[in-house]
Amino acid sequence: MVSKKIAILGLGTVGQGVFRVLRDHQAKITSQLHHALEVKKIFVRSPEKVTEEFSSQAEIVTDYQEIIADPDIDIVVEVMGGIDFAKQCIEGALQAGKAVVTANKDLICEHGAALSQLAETKELDLRFEAAVAGGIPILNTLRNSFAGDDVTEILGILNGTSNFIISEMTENGSSYQEALAKAQKLGFAEADPSADVDGLDAGRKAVILAKMGFGISLNLDDVMIKGISDLNAVDIEIAKNLGYVIKSLAVLDRQGENFACEVQSFLLEKSHPLAMVKQEMNAVYTKSKAGGEMMFYGPGAGELPTGVAVVSDIIQVAKNQENDDYQVFANYRLDEKVHLSAQANYPYYYRLAIQNQSQGLKTLLGLLNQEGLSINHLGNYQEGVLYILTSPGSYSSHKAIAKQLESAQGVELLASYPIFNEEKED
Amino acid sequence: MVSKKIAILGLGTVGQGVFRVLRDHQAKITSQLHHALEVKKIFVRSPEKVTEEFSSQAEIVTDYQEIIADPDIDIVVEVMGGIDFAKQCIEGALQAGKAVVTANKDLICEHGAALSQLAETKELDLRFEAAVAGGIPILNTLRNSFAGDDVTEILGILNGTSNFIISEMTENGSSYQEALAKAQKLGFAEADPSADVDGLDAGRKAVILAKMGFGISLNLDDVMIKGISDLNAVDIEIAKNLGYVIKSLAVLDRQGENFACEVQSFLLEKSHPLAMVKQEMNAVYTKSKAGGEMMFYGPGAGELPTGVAVVSDIIQVAKNQENDDYQVFANYRLDEKVHLSAQANYPYYYRLAIQNQSQGLKTLLGLLNQEGLSINHLGNYQEGVLYILTSPGSYSSHKAIAKQLESAQGVELLASYPIFNEEKED
Repeated sequence: MVSKKIAILGLGTVGQGVFRVLRDHQAKITSQLHHALEVKKIFVRSPEKVTEEFSSQAEIVTDYQEIIADPDIDIVVEVMGGIDFAKQCIEGALQAGKAVVTANKDLICEHGAALSQLAETKELDLRFEAAVAGGIPILNTLRNSFAGDDVTEILGILNGTSNFIISEMTENGSSYQEALAKAQKLGFAEADPSADVDGLDAGRKAVILAKMGFGISLNLDDVMIKGISDLNAVDIEIAKNLGYVIKSLAVLDRQGENFACEVQSFLLEKSHPLAMVKQEMNAVYTKSKAGGEMMFYGPGAGELPTGVAVVSDIIQVAKNQENDDYQVFANYRLDEKVHLSAQANYPYYYRLAIQNQSQGLKTLLGLLNQEGLSINHLGNYQEGVLYILTSPGSYSSHKAIAKQLESAQGVELLASYPIFNEEKED
Repeated sequence: MVSKKIAILGLGTVGQGVFRVLRDHQAKITSQLHHALEVKKIFVRSPEKVTEEFSSQAEIVTDYQEIIADPDIDIVVEVMGGIDFAKQCIEGALQAGKAVVTANKDLICEHGAALSQLAETKELDLRFEAAVAGGIPILNTLRNSFAGDDVTEILGILNGTSNFIISEMTENGSSYQEALAKAQKLGFAEADPSADVDGLDAGRKAVILAKMGFGISLNLDDVMIKGISDLNAVDIEIAKNLGYVIKSLAVLDRQGENFACEVQSFLLEKSHPLAMVKQEMNAVYTKSKAGGEMMFYGPGAGELPTGVAVVSDIIQVAKNQENDDYQVFANYRLDEKVHLSAQANYPYYYRLAIQNQSQGLKTLLGLLNQEGLSINHLGNYQEGVLYILTSPGSYSSHKAIAKQLESAQGVELLASYPIFNEEKED
């Protein structure tokens, strides 16, 4: 059996996963193709760190041009991460007539449109399933299985680090710092966790989901992003007593011409399918006009799950090449313009310090009233601290109220989160 | 824009759904193809029942040969159900060079291999995503996204009627008969619900999952099937107090050379992702060597969700035809032989009537002991009725114990269910 030759750029966690999945699942892979898949070259920056496991099976190169210039190589797999150099390598590979598979969400978020355009011009595959939600095949599903349906809403738990931390705080009553330390100890959070806990990672994935699910092209700046580092165990406890969990969600919401895309912590009803997504797991929940509600749940990261997602792309590319064919992966284009809003309308949860209850509530009600909002539920957490659930309102209303509360006498806003409710008003 | 012509065989719930999805999502569909998709002919048996909605848009025919013989028709969509006539139509369409999409699980369960073989010989597409779990794109996912991974376990909640009934019994304490009546009233169960509640429907879907997930060809007779009609609210209540839910599951379990495929009610831990699948919803939970655990959740039936699944197949076929191409859908073939066993090893839940506790327990322990089993947990439900959880044992052991209990003095087995535990022993 003739081999199809692959080059891998980068041999970190994902690169090693790709190599091992290709090696360990050869029988099944080969049964689906007319070629075996062989890793011919691996590009790394520090060849001295490469172990025998890899160097005995593939040629280790430190100049990526050796890969671009190698006419034997059919498919280039970019799993280095980073933006500029990865982009240069992918462009070089496409220009040289090689199909590309990447797991690089930062790159696809920023340059996915241009790279897809280049691939289409060259009639080559460019696939990036692993860029969103690791092992969950959500991009393929949005591309193929929703091809005859209109998606109206995507909710994602897209960052395993954040979900692990919130899950620890919820299940074990840990503080944010304790939960973060545990995540770092277990390898679910990096030494500098900021891209994860600040929501940037999930925001980038949301940009890719906007394109693949709705055909809407966004920049990262279009996404309203709030991280989880100010999350307080008190709010998780109050939410629990009210029948909610707190989850950091990416929310993509389309209502006619209006589209909102954001990443932040929400109160979510305990009965919602996403409420059971715990620890480092990821999930994507969709609503669509014909299909109704669906959820796709699985590992959002990890060497082998991400490796499998990359390899499924490689196999698809190999099948296409065997047919002298290619597919445009990000091929759903929306012609209509949408109006981008910061956030859909939600009821909010506020936790407030109030010195004099009757005086404080009067002030609060006045501010809510100015924005046309009212209190749907009120509870006392402890002496001088109460929480309310408001009626649904726009982001600008809630922002205006928060702003005014900064200078209000005797009332202090301690925390506020939108409440995700599938039956939300517009 | 030139149209690609489609014929629909059958205009029941699914046929109407296919028609409406194609009509209502034209803009998105067309944006992905070089052709519009047009329903040219619809085959029905009773043309007088066809309403204006359909007859004004397509030619209604009562002789399917008019479709087979029409050289304009590129894709035949079979959504009639039934086996012999549907098979004849699909064979005719393939012989005439037309690609086929079907939602017919009974047919694919029984003749999927032969029909796939015929399609491959004719170099034509034959797709059947909607045959398993309605709107959930599980077959595409198994085919494409698990292409580089080895599935070891599939658990499915595959029959919406059964899940609705169990869910009603669990949430509202209804009896089986009350829950069935409600399911019939709401349209989730047919007047004759036997294929659903007896487990045959889920068994057929399990046969298709065995092929698509594991590359293993089974007959329906290879699947051990038990329905839900003897389910008692008492067992649901006891299970709940022990931290379990009862769910009717299709279980496909591969341990090396051993493969078990069955449909029956299990005790399932409340924390298992499938435990939250309620009412008429379906879900498929997978474990694979590299990917770990995943779950795919959504509507298992219904006009529009099933219609979307069929239409996603149609769009894929149309894309392939535009490239002068086709794909073998059920293309993962396992060369190795597996040893079929009735069931993997499980601990069991038994509910027993015992007249004299010390005497009865002695008898019971004796029988368990003969099979190398012991009691892991014991509780009293009420005077004279107790329940036990056993250590894990083979199906034949549990069957032998049940058999012996039939003639035992003073001990009567009232109910027994296996306990699904992800950490099960072999």
